[in-house]
Amino acid sequence: MFEAKFQTFKDEANKARSAARLAALRAALKQQGLDGFVFSRADEHQNEYVPPSEERVAWLTGFTGSAAIVAVLPGKAALFTDGRYTLQAKEQIDGTLFSIEHMIEQPVTKWLADNLATGATLGYDPWRTTADGVERLEKAAKEAGARLVAVKDNPIDAIWTERPAPPLTPVVLHGLQYAGEDASKKIARIREVLAKEKIGVAVLSDPASVAWTFNIRGNDVAHTPLPLSWAIVPREGEPQLFVDGRKLSNEVRDALAKLADIREPRELEVELHEAARGKSVRLDQATAPAKLAGVVQAAGGSLSKGADPVTNLKAIKNEAEIAGMRAAHLRDGAALTRYLAWLDREAPGGTISEIEAVAALETFRRETGKLKEISFPTISGAGPNGAIVHYRVTEASNRKLRSGELFLVDSGAQYEDGTTDVTRTVAIGTPSQEMRERFTLVLKGHIAVARAVFPEGTNGAQLDPFARRALWEAGLDFDHGTGHGVGSYLSVHEGPARISKLGSAALLPGMILSNEPGYYKAGAYGIRIENLLLVEKREGGIEKQLLGFETLTFAPIDRRLVDAKRLTAEEIAWLDAYHAAVRAKIGPQLGADDRTWLEAAAAPLHA
Amino acid sequence: MFEAKFQTFKDEANKARSAARLAALRAALKQQGLDGFVFSRADEHQNEYVPPSEERVAWLTGFTGSAAIVAVLPGKAALFTDGRYTLQAKEQIDGTLFSIEHMIEQPVTKWLADNLATGATLGYDPWRTTADGVERLEKAAKEAGARLVAVKDNPIDAIWTERPAPPLTPVVLHGLQYAGEDASKKIARIREVLAKEKIGVAVLSDPASVAWTFNIRGNDVAHTPLPLSWAIVPREGEPQLFVDGRKLSNEVRDALAKLADIREPRELEVELHEAARGKSVRLDQATAPAKLAGVVQAAGGSLSKGADPVTNLKAIKNEAEIAGMRAAHLRDGAALTRYLAWLDREAPGGTISEIEAVAALETFRRETGKLKEISFPTISGAGPNGAIVHYRVTEASNRKLRSGELFLVDSGAQYEDGTTDVTRTVAIGTPSQEMRERFTLVLKGHIAVARAVFPEGTNGAQLDPFARRALWEAGLDFDHGTGHGVGSYLSVHEGPARISKLGSAALLPGMILSNEPGYYKAGAYGIRIENLLLVEKREGGIEKQLLGFETLTFAPIDRRLVDAKRLTAEEIAWLDAYHAAVRAKIGPQLGADDRTWLEAAAAPLHA
Repeated sequence: MFEAKFQTFKDEANKARSAARLAALRAALKQQGLDGFVFSRADEHQNEYVPPSEERVAWLTGFTGSAAIVAVLPGKAALFTDGRYTLQAKEQIDGTLFSIEHMIEQPVTKWLADNLATGATLGYDPWRTTADGVERLEKAAKEAGARLVAVKDNPIDAIWTERPAPPLTPVVLHGLQYAGEDASKKIARIREVLAKEKIGVAVLSDPASVAWTFNIRGNDVAHTPLPLSWAIVPREGEPQLFVDGRKLSNEVRDALAKLADIREPRELEVELHEAARGKSVRLDQATAPAKLAGVVQAAGGSLSKGADPVTNLKAIKNEAEIAGMRAAHLRDGAALTRYLAWLDREAPGGTISEIEAVAALETFRRETGKLKEISFPTISGAGPNGAIVHYRVTEASNRKLRSGELFLVDSGAQYEDGTTDVTRTVAIGTPSQEMRERFTLVLKGHIAVARAVFPEGTNGAQLDPFARRALWEAGLDFDHGTGHGVGSYLSVHEGPARISKLGSAALLPGMILSNEPGYYKAGAYGIRIENLLLVEKREGGIEKQLLGFETLTFAPIDRRLVDAKRLTAEEIAWLDAYHAAVRAKIGPQLGADDRTWLEAAAAPLHA
Repeated sequence: MFEAKFQTFKDEANKARSAARLAALRAALKQQGLDGFVFSRADEHQNEYVPPSEERVAWLTGFTGSAAIVAVLPGKAALFTDGRYTLQAKEQIDGTLFSIEHMIEQPVTKWLADNLATGATLGYDPWRTTADGVERLEKAAKEAGARLVAVKDNPIDAIWTERPAPPLTPVVLHGLQYAGEDASKKIARIREVLAKEKIGVAVLSDPASVAWTFNIRGNDVAHTPLPLSWAIVPREGEPQLFVDGRKLSNEVRDALAKLADIREPRELEVELHEAARGKSVRLDQATAPAKLAGVVQAAGGSLSKGADPVTNLKAIKNEAEIAGMRAAHLRDGAALTRYLAWLDREAPGGTISEIEAVAALETFRRETGKLKEISFPTISGAGPNGAIVHYRVTEASNRKLRSGELFLVDSGAQYEDGTTDVTRTVAIGTPSQEMRERFTLVLKGHIAVARAVFPEGTNGAQLDPFARRALWEAGLDFDHGTGHGVGSYLSVHEGPARISKLGSAALLPGMILSNEPGYYKAGAYGIRIENLLLVEKREGGIEKQLLGFETLTFAPIDRRLVDAKRLTAEEIAWLDAYHAAVRAKIGPQLGADDRTWLEAAAAPLHA
């Protein structure tokens, strides 16, 4: 009945073939005159989601986690991951071939410095390593008296005979009704930034920046509607767009040709060499390949370190994007509410599994007729699985939703008019008093952020403590940020602003951020309440321009988990007003049964 | 009747002599083969307060502000200061000799890069410039095609014929009843840090660190009881203490000789060269002279960048220091309360000036019989002068306290058992409703910090927003941090922790910090409410060890400025409990009249 098309639940570990592959890799390295090779899960764009053709770590080691670095030396090899994935790595890889290392406690640089032989030559892929990454590796190699060299071709690709072809999904134009601004105007605004910062040329290595600039979208990777592509935007002269021509229909090509010189990605190196000559060139410090930094230097250009100039521009949504996000959230809220009603009817029976819950939610969203993708793999965590912050259900971990437990579901959708990201935690059957108390503390943090009013110039680090204060007072906390930026039919994780200890970027009107405090009791349950927020101007500041948030997400927050005695009058008023808005905006989209359910689920606390 | 012994009110500008002095300096530079010289107000220790023998900026330019860099080139010269001092600089210096530059908007490095001639040689004093500072200057010189050279002797001293002798105040032992820990144990703890961080030798260039380590104090600079001195603490072997022997009595010398090899400061260079050979040497990045970094490198040692290892140790006060701080604050609170009562009787008559107010407060403190110094020049700001955050009253700016205005007084004392820092804002006569509203918003921020409860690991940046929230909601804010660390009969400004956007150090039990939110209406009035806080452990955290604050400062907060309608029940309870503690702790120390005054001034809000 329900089906998940955008998410799999398989454990794709194939460690049985790792021994042969590792031997083949070592032989290939030897042939290239290399004593070792270090690589990560990154593709050429440092994308969050990578195409199957880039899954070299999984191919070699069997490990499928998103945080992974692999170092292969003649006598030993290691996989570096973080605390989230240590257990998964143990199950997925062959421990006789690879040691598992914690990337924070035992960084790959330290491991290399300790294990590289004096005089050894260590290879890395300069297209899949950033300049900062190369600098760190170079330091490690130097410590060991070894030499770091960029490989011309990735040595894994030579032996990965069954490697999937890189994706070639069609590029589509993102209509002006969604984008809200002509690409030509966006290019002009990028050039204003270049002029202001005295930069001659910007290289867009993040496909999300290319997509925003040229008002295009694609389907080359899961969950983010990106076309794998590059662009060069000079302060003067024609921009260049590097995209595989096979992805362009005649219509799309004609539209793009009015904006840019269209080139094949393999031409990027030569064209950048030309464009960079004697110029100051901005490469995005976080994502640009070291290869391109080398091209700029070889061309006699100077590197301008800093962020992709598009990052700040695309973070501020225009009126069309905001209208689209609002519409997407009303549609998504109705699908989520139908799902929550279904869950409330079915789950207490004990027959629904985490995987079925994922499939059901995706199905309700697909029934809107507008779903393009889910914006990330749904986190569907029942009972103790809810306490695993980055939990992703597999057939092995799958668990039934049981009465007396909490169920945490964090999910999102990609619609052409907007991207959503929402978390609800619901009680299956009757929750314990402890669950209600801690849910209420999380809710107080959520409300404190939602109600925050602050002057222009305030950054996310300054708001983050408001999400924690109630938890802190009880001696509790959560070990992740409170919120991240969200793209507009682009990546669900977008810079530069975030609400976290590290959120140094100022919040500006038009930015969209998540508000998702939580609490996790290991082995027992997890709680998270997440809505998306739009930063907006507020009247009434005596001396400063005030900002505040408009909540974009509408779906009921489980009243059975709210201990109203622990809320202030202002907090109760916020929740009641929020639920009134949910009833008004979502109710009319529902059938009679679901509407009746919603009226009760979103009733005022003291009704 | 009242006298200020520790603070002057003169404008010591002597710009009339600047032209001749500048000409003499240029001639001296030419003789040394230099085309320019750049220097700041810093002494060899980057002390906050410097002895008169180090006031080279004032001697040359007439400028007496604390933030100052001077660059002298053949054709032009400039004084760099910050926004606080721009007006003062205009009055104090001869604008035909020095241009006044804003050190943030027009950094000295940019000015030098623009104004140094190609091939020019620029001198700097390597004893009074940090290694980081030299790096910045070198970059600027390189940009201009110029050369940066360290001078052997400061060229100003050669022409400053009437230069005062460096201070030679006696070093005194800081008794164990105040210090709470033997110097030998402190040295052992420093060595543990060195072992843990794999450092061979630590150089203590901050006299506050030397004073803490060896349990000594001095009087070489104003306001901070420092003996100008240095120390070398090797991980193994005898520490060396570099202090002018003329400052040591036989008794003090005998005590110190048990702990360290005592040397003259002029021997530091040679001894460090010996100690650094082949060792990892920690120089405090913020304060150590570039000269010493050069000595370490010349000796074949390696530089370990980071903080002075004493910084973190001395920030955590032991039981004796905490008991001393509590006692000092009770004594100081009584003096301050007597002063506030006097002010309340006298000021509405309109006869008291800001200077008299300073003198009176110092006198009340001196009458405790225990006052060693004031911990910084008292900020005594009536009406619009209160809105100048770093205001320092002079005979020219002096103003009477007038009815209908606010008076802000920020002051502190140095007692052998502790250092205080307290700000009170009082209404002279009847305040306006606006004053009361804004005072109440500041008070809400003060109470939010005082009441904060937070888990171990929380830093000051995470608490800073609590001080601002109520102001933010009204569109108001203040443009300084909420709090700084405070030493124990040492500097009133002490690292590493602070409550500010930049406060990245975790707050730990035993640390003492100020809590001083404010609000400043330019041209009208200033408000600040400051108490000192002790970080302490709190019971009851469910999962985390909780921390909170004990307020150390006891003096009434002006109830006439509190708009109780704008306080929550919890806030009123805090203020009433605070005032009850003030009455209980301070009342018994007062005469009958002052006690009667206090009973009313510190009465409950709804009495």
